[in-house]
Amino acid sequence: MINKLVANIRKTNAPIVVGLDPTDKLIPDFLMKKAIEQYGETLEAAGEAIWQYNKGIIDAVCEDIPAVKPQIAMYEQYGLPGLVAFDKTVKYCKEKGLVVIADIKRGDIGSTSAAYAIGHLGSVKVGNTVCKAFDEDFATVNPYLGSDGIKPFLDVCAEEKKGIFVLVKTSNPSSGEFQDKNFEGKTLYNLVADKVAEWADSLMGDEYSYVGAVVGATYPEVGMAMREVMPKSYILVPGYGAQGGKGKDLAHFFNKDGLGAIVNSSRGIIGAYLQEEYAKYGEEGYADAAKAAVKAMKEDIMSAIG
Amino acid sequence: MINKLVANIRKTNAPIVVGLDPTDKLIPDFLMKKAIEQYGETLEAAGEAIWQYNKGIIDAVCEDIPAVKPQIAMYEQYGLPGLVAFDKTVKYCKEKGLVVIADIKRGDIGSTSAAYAIGHLGSVKVGNTVCKAFDEDFATVNPYLGSDGIKPFLDVCAEEKKGIFVLVKTSNPSSGEFQDKNFEGKTLYNLVADKVAEWADSLMGDEYSYVGAVVGATYPEVGMAMREVMPKSYILVPGYGAQGGKGKDLAHFFNKDGLGAIVNSSRGIIGAYLQEEYAKYGEEGYADAAKAAVKAMKEDIMSAIG
Repeated sequence: MINKLVANIRKTNAPIVVGLDPTDKLIPDFLMKKAIEQYGETLEAAGEAIWQYNKGIIDAVCEDIPAVKPQIAMYEQYGLPGLVAFDKTVKYCKEKGLVVIADIKRGDIGSTSAAYAIGHLGSVKVGNTVCKAFDEDFATVNPYLGSDGIKPFLDVCAEEKKGIFVLVKTSNPSSGEFQDKNFEGKTLYNLVADKVAEWADSLMGDEYSYVGAVVGATYPEVGMAMREVMPKSYILVPGYGAQGGKGKDLAHFFNKDGLGAIVNSSRGIIGAYLQEEYAKYGEEGYADAAKAAVKAMKEDIMSAIG
Repeated sequence: MINKLVANIRKTNAPIVVGLDPTDKLIPDFLMKKAIEQYGETLEAAGEAIWQYNKGIIDAVCEDIPAVKPQIAMYEQYGLPGLVAFDKTVKYCKEKGLVVIADIKRGDIGSTSAAYAIGHLGSVKVGNTVCKAFDEDFATVNPYLGSDGIKPFLDVCAEEKKGIFVLVKTSNPSSGEFQDKNFEGKTLYNLVADKVAEWADSLMGDEYSYVGAVVGATYPEVGMAMREVMPKSYILVPGYGAQGGKGKDLAHFFNKDGLGAIVNSSRGIIGAYLQEEYAKYGEEGYADAAKAAVKAMKEDIMSAIG
């Protein structure tokens, strides 16, 4: 799947991923109203509105981008109906040829970690039948529990040719509270990155590894250092746009081949219609606004790394 | 909810929590067969078997224990039908008066962390209607992303009078890979524990805080140290039984009032019928075997801390 991600990036010439993080502030009113007419003021209505919202965006941008990153928390907050919308979204994106990076940040140990890996990337047997649960292409994983939490994911990835992005240095203001602490000359995020490099070596695709890392756009100097520590890992870069990261900050996250990083924007794309710049599209034109915002983001990043 | 947990522990005189972690190796064949007859070899069949399995155990042990800890990964691996079983299990346990500690180990930032907190402990608005999604009593949370990941949970907990257990020192063999590293004079788990103590102070119930910690039974000396660092936090102790922790190791996790810790056992209870000691109950007697195992665990722990 890392090979498909690289191929998709080359095809679209866009090292970007659109975060499908549908919050109630972003979902256009007309979609929510329509869903409430159908289902009443219920979680089912929220799930339906999310699904229709996502479908509009996917249809508009699927040929311009290589991948999407649905943030499962935004679906989980609406319980089972929210997760039905998540499931539909994943399936629809895959049908459209997009690589699906599920932002689930799961992390547990042993058989529990294996269960997450199976549920999100692998398959499970019921009787003699092999069943797939959520079946995304990549998942984000939290390293706090050490190798015990990661190895079950590596096993499933090897079998299914899928991948993970391990949290190394996250984009949020307080990420340094633990991640930046210094241990005998190395920060915690550096220790994690060393492990990622080791895991990445053990699971290579054609050019890049199935094991990638998350490093926030908001810490460009960290991006530069981490690029060297994990040369074979794709870096998933959140924090561009709404969180403050700029195109020019991103150059160091890429390798000299112009590959090696994929930059996420969520609100900046799916909520573009709420920004002054794209206000002309109006609420009903939210998908076209998203398409225009993708184009602008692509130009910003390509000019920075070009 | 911390007050209810303490009251339930006093009432049952059992500082134990049963981990409802239904894996395919633990679910009795007769339940899986029956579910497959009804639903075919599908994820729905697995969900139904899990639900029936859990219901049997809950009915058998609900008067003997204060709380349950369903591990959501075991449900998530069966996709949406697995999560339907999770949802039913949570609701049923609450009906029976049990405190539900959802072992979800979520951890993200800002609005995303808020979405997890809302989905699992809080409520969400659809139109003008307040809806509850999973609505558990406590959730486990991963601290890797720092305060940004925890604060949204604290806000929801304050509003709903619910609680969290923050991962401090996990029970797995590789937990030391990052957690035990010494950063500027303190281990990572100690740095996290300092923060937990701070968060705990800000959100007190009558005797204990809404903010607890996870410290594995497999590291008793750590338990002793952490007990002092976080005096007002309940410690959720995994790793007893199947993972190797023994009753005598647990004394130091408790305060002098005999409170302050709650010890989890999953396989050791729900899979008791597979152990030689309880083989006489047979597969169909799995719930009675679980009840007997709860009794033995209670005696083991009470004799150690008594």
